[in-house]
Amino acid sequence: MTAFEPGSADYERRTRESFARQAAMALIGAEITRVEPGRVEIVLPFSAQITQQHGFIHAGITSAIADTAGGFAAFTLFPPEVSVLTAEYKINLLSPAVGPRLVAVGEVLKPGRTLTTCEVAVYNEDADGRRKLCAKLLQTLARVGPRSDIEQAG
Amino acid sequence: MTAFEPGSADYERRTRESFARQAAMALIGAEITRVEPGRVEIVLPFSAQITQQHGFIHAGITSAIADTAGGFAAFTLFPPEVSVLTAEYKINLLSPAVGPRLVAVGEVLKPGRTLTTCEVAVYNEDADGRRKLCAKLLQTLARVGPRSDIEQAG
Amino acid sequence: MTAFEPGSADYERRTRESFARQAAMALIGAEITRVEPGRVEIVLPFSAQITQQHGFIHAGITSAIADTAGGFAAFTLFPPEVSVLTAEYKINLLSPAVGPRLVAVGEVLKPGRTLTTCEVAVYNEDADGRRKLCAKLLQTLARVGPRSDIEQAG
Amino acid sequence: MTAFEPGSADYERRTRESFARQAAMALIGAEITRVEPGRVEIVLPFSAQITQQHGFIHAGITSAIADTAGGFAAFTLFPPEVSVLTAEYKINLLSPAVGPRLVAVGEVLKPGRTLTTCEVAVYNEDADGRRKLCAKLLQTLARVGPRSDIEQAG
Repeated sequence: MTAFEPGSADYERRTRESFARQAAMALIGAEITRVEPGRVEIVLPFSAQITQQHGFIHAGITSAIADTAGGFAAFTLFPPEVSVLTAEYKINLLSPAVGPRLVAVGEVLKPGRTLTTCEVAVYNEDADGRRKLCAKLLQTLARVGPRSDIEQAG
Repeated sequence: MTAFEPGSADYERRTRESFARQAAMALIGAEITRVEPGRVEIVLPFSAQITQQHGFIHAGITSAIADTAGGFAAFTLFPPEVSVLTAEYKINLLSPAVGPRLVAVGEVLKPGRTLTTCEVAVYNEDADGRRKLCAKLLQTLARVGPRSDIEQAG
Repeated sequence: MTAFEPGSADYERRTRESFARQAAMALIGAEITRVEPGRVEIVLPFSAQITQQHGFIHAGITSAIADTAGGFAAFTLFPPEVSVLTAEYKINLLSPAVGPRLVAVGEVLKPGRTLTTCEVAVYNEDADGRRKLCAKLLQTLARVGPRSDIEQAG
Repeated sequence: MTAFEPGSADYERRTRESFARQAAMALIGAEITRVEPGRVEIVLPFSAQITQQHGFIHAGITSAIADTAGGFAAFTLFPPEVSVLTAEYKINLLSPAVGPRLVAVGEVLKPGRTLTTCEVAVYNEDADGRRKLCAKLLQTLARVGPRSDIEQAG
């Protein structure tokens, strides 16, 4: 992989603080683990409350951590006062999300002034840290300025 | 739109029961409202617990109801004892998901023996029922048999 | 559909001239037919030279006209001296592309200052003008300035 | 990467023969170079006839070789008398396709009885063999039987 320059000296603190403001991640039980320039990992332990009708983790919940991992991977490369919005993503669900925990590894493929492209792999990880690919996501992120810009998005 | 034949006489009851078994939908506060052959609506009221760092509904949560609306739209056309798994989807997030409630309208584009393709529109809906397009999803679903088949998926 | 304001008084002439500069469209035999604000149609007659191994039109060729129809639908809304690049798209191939001709209908879903989202339907059309849905595309386009900006893209 | 079992002893010959029957690939000037179990490379030299209005290779043509590389990567794993159809794909165009030649490297992510998922990287490659990432594709392929099955597809 290419090495990326972080967007600021305190990119890790900024990334973890922004993640902590995502109420949805707390609701489903997700945590941010590794934060590197252009690469972020999110972990989600299996729990019954996030399942679908077959008892697997809901595809939308798997998507939520994958989208978040990619978005924050991009965020690590952005200067302060610049934020990130997901423009779109596509996810292929390769095998049932059974856990015991999911790990979403988001990586920047191509950073850009306007658009940043990321890919994310989601794994079922067992207690010994063995990972099996569960889903793959390809994502386009838009750089946005302060909140007033977001309000006018589109 | 083309009119579709439902997969069974009691497609509506089966669809609502299957939705009720999705713990993840209860967790985020989503409800299934309309169920027609090849068309399903899911409603999600705004709440702080499902937001991201800017205070909008998290893209992953928007995706979760969109994926669910498309999956159940396909499910209405399937015979009993056949279930549905999302193979993949792509979502474009067109404007911030601010509510006061989101409505995801899933419709079958093309039913098939193996694969069914759906599209889903997600709207911000106000108290007067006015809808503004918020996201668009295009999705591929696979028909699966009883649980033993799912376990071997892939 | 929403009515859109064209990007200039001579949007139709500009669109047709830009299409005429796409050598790839001439190579495969595609023509631009209708041009309206936010909506463009491209027609491609079946010919043996654009097929894959089963004798259908190659999915990549179907994609090429779909991508072009969406791109020019966005282009009609842009001011002069602004061009368009496809950032990404996703296509679902719903039934074999057999013709006798394909018609790709591109429509703007959401115009934006930076990103424009389009969707495109591709039909098999017979001699009597009857259309059967063959493919569906969802696409993100980026607005770019003069050629120097494009060279630096990314 | 995981090592895959080829679908037959003569998978390479079968793959090259099937590629040779794709008239569209000959039209644009594409060639199949490497064929391994679960991995196929397609090369496309730059030529003026495959460009769009800015003089880059048309996104649809880039997609055509990417789709083909992924499709044949899956095909190498299939038993004789089984063919492959693209159900859908999504492509992100990361930088202008300028050549001097494009190389599309298709790899199977997850083989399956019904669906196979592939990803494809497309590179601009210079005369010294240096590659720069130009596009990334994520694709779902369906296994189909003899021609009669294809005619009834959907």
